[in-house]
Amino acid sequence: MNSSTTPALDLTSLDGLVSAMRAGHRLALSRLISKVENRSSDLSEIIMRLYPFTGGAQLIGITGPPGAGKSTLVDRLAAAYRAQGKRVAIVAVDPSSPFTGGAILGDRIRMQAHYGDPNVFIRSLGTRGKHGGLSHSTKEVVMVLDAAGFDVILVETAGVGQTELEVLRLAQTVVVVLVPESGDSIQVMKAGLMEIADLFVVNKSDRPESDKLVRELHTMLSLVMPEEGGWHQPVLKTEAVRDQGVKELSESIDEHQAHLTRTGVRTQKTAEFLKSEVLDILTEKLNQSVLLAFQTTSGRELLSDLLARKVNPYQAASLLSGQP
Amino acid sequence: MNSSTTPALDLTSLDGLVSAMRAGHRLALSRLISKVENRSSDLSEIIMRLYPFTGGAQLIGITGPPGAGKSTLVDRLAAAYRAQGKRVAIVAVDPSSPFTGGAILGDRIRMQAHYGDPNVFIRSLGTRGKHGGLSHSTKEVVMVLDAAGFDVILVETAGVGQTELEVLRLAQTVVVVLVPESGDSIQVMKAGLMEIADLFVVNKSDRPESDKLVRELHTMLSLVMPEEGGWHQPVLKTEAVRDQGVKELSESIDEHQAHLTRTGVRTQKTAEFLKSEVLDILTEKLNQSVLLAFQTTSGRELLSDLLARKVNPYQAASLLSGQP
Repeated sequence: MNSSTTPALDLTSLDGLVSAMRAGHRLALSRLISKVENRSSDLSEIIMRLYPFTGGAQLIGITGPPGAGKSTLVDRLAAAYRAQGKRVAIVAVDPSSPFTGGAILGDRIRMQAHYGDPNVFIRSLGTRGKHGGLSHSTKEVVMVLDAAGFDVILVETAGVGQTELEVLRLAQTVVVVLVPESGDSIQVMKAGLMEIADLFVVNKSDRPESDKLVRELHTMLSLVMPEEGGWHQPVLKTEAVRDQGVKELSESIDEHQAHLTRTGVRTQKTAEFLKSEVLDILTEKLNQSVLLAFQTTSGRELLSDLLARKVNPYQAASLLSGQP
Repeated sequence: MNSSTTPALDLTSLDGLVSAMRAGHRLALSRLISKVENRSSDLSEIIMRLYPFTGGAQLIGITGPPGAGKSTLVDRLAAAYRAQGKRVAIVAVDPSSPFTGGAILGDRIRMQAHYGDPNVFIRSLGTRGKHGGLSHSTKEVVMVLDAAGFDVILVETAGVGQTELEVLRLAQTVVVVLVPESGDSIQVMKAGLMEIADLFVVNKSDRPESDKLVRELHTMLSLVMPEEGGWHQPVLKTEAVRDQGVKELSESIDEHQAHLTRTGVRTQKTAEFLKSEVLDILTEKLNQSVLLAFQTTSGRELLSDLLARKVNPYQAASLLSGQP
């Protein structure tokens, strides 16, 4: 064994993990992602080291109501990218409860299609943790995957609650998947999807009502005049289970990605991603420091005064921050 | 007209609004709540003035899956409290999209039951705004209603996403409403409801499967031993549309409220509410200041360096906060 070409793997140190991850070692990648998810104490160190290697990946967000067939579509899309020789990561984000039917967590069936393919990486993220936590973790997981050299990162979310919309705002291209049953176009507008969608997909297009939904979406889109040189949101039809329309979808995503580069919108989107990451870092720090502050003697006195209505919350905030 | 007993109403100044609200003027209350929702520039002033009058209300959170009949139950519960002469406010919080079926916003049918009753106040809150925004606004709306002298504030949320759980954490008593169709008790545990529920309600108890659900919940609860002197989460049956079991529910809530006072847990809960309100105030300030910082010349340079990968987000956060 020639130690100069195959250096011993060291997955215990951060240096070792980063080197192994950059060399394509999956276990190292998984461990780094777990550290990000668990808000490990060396988290800032991880991002600091990996950050120079980021910026190469295409970041595609995919959302839609439960039952729209998102997971199948994402899998087929991943296969389409693989056929082009691209390395693909899938991040399934589910902040919602089983109540809402968005049970994408733990759905491991999808993995079978790509089993043994070292160029497809799938990870589910979900938490009932502190506010803002999930979209922050997702951002940092995306940075890790980007630094790991994946060409395409597909971020799948179920539904469009507050956290889901935050997660989608990270994406460069947002695909909204609908099915006839998911309701009419007015609901799409109410859900805030008009502003966020770059592409609409009507999946399960074999169903009788799908053409009606396509027409409704076109009508809705015709009411909004895109800016000169702006992006015209296309409406595509797919039947993911039979692999119909998936190639066209990937081509349409490519067109949108080319549009982003051509117009400079890509840089704007990256800037927004980075600003929100910086804000999240500061928010996380603030959370920790306020928690600690309330455990000190003066913090406990402040809490007593709050409870006694001697001090109000805005005064307490000023006192804690040392600012008027 | 005797001006000494009926002073002229002034709803243009904050002083006037606060006085009118405290005197039971509904329009003044609505305006103050709108100011809170819209994050008015005199928001801190509003809370500062009203805070001394808070602390009297019972704060009851009610959640459950879409279709569990929460709205009807909340209405009947409000009627039960009214029969006791209590003033009741209902806050319906819906951070979710129409996708998830939680369309409690705009549901004005409920208002008819209490139409013309000055002692019932109903307000819907919903937003697709910035993260953490909705639970912060809800907290402050609750403070306004508390200061307005409502005895009971019912906060209804649909589903248990991240934002909904944050909102429920404000409540003193949390009621989880289920129906047989909402799935088994394992889902309840997965959704994090075991930790948060003080009372379980099986609504639509006329349905054949309801007894099975009650048994499942009892089995699930028997696995967790409450602490010595702790609260035993009861499982109640209601049929809200026929007003069955509602009185028993309100009595059970009263018992829980008495338990909170007896054990000192009430003060702990209020302390948590206040700590999270202080944190939210500081987080909102941080959001604004970071946004402004990125608009300055040095902020724009920092963003360029971030985009060029010369500076990483953790370094940028340290630079912005002036802390290492």
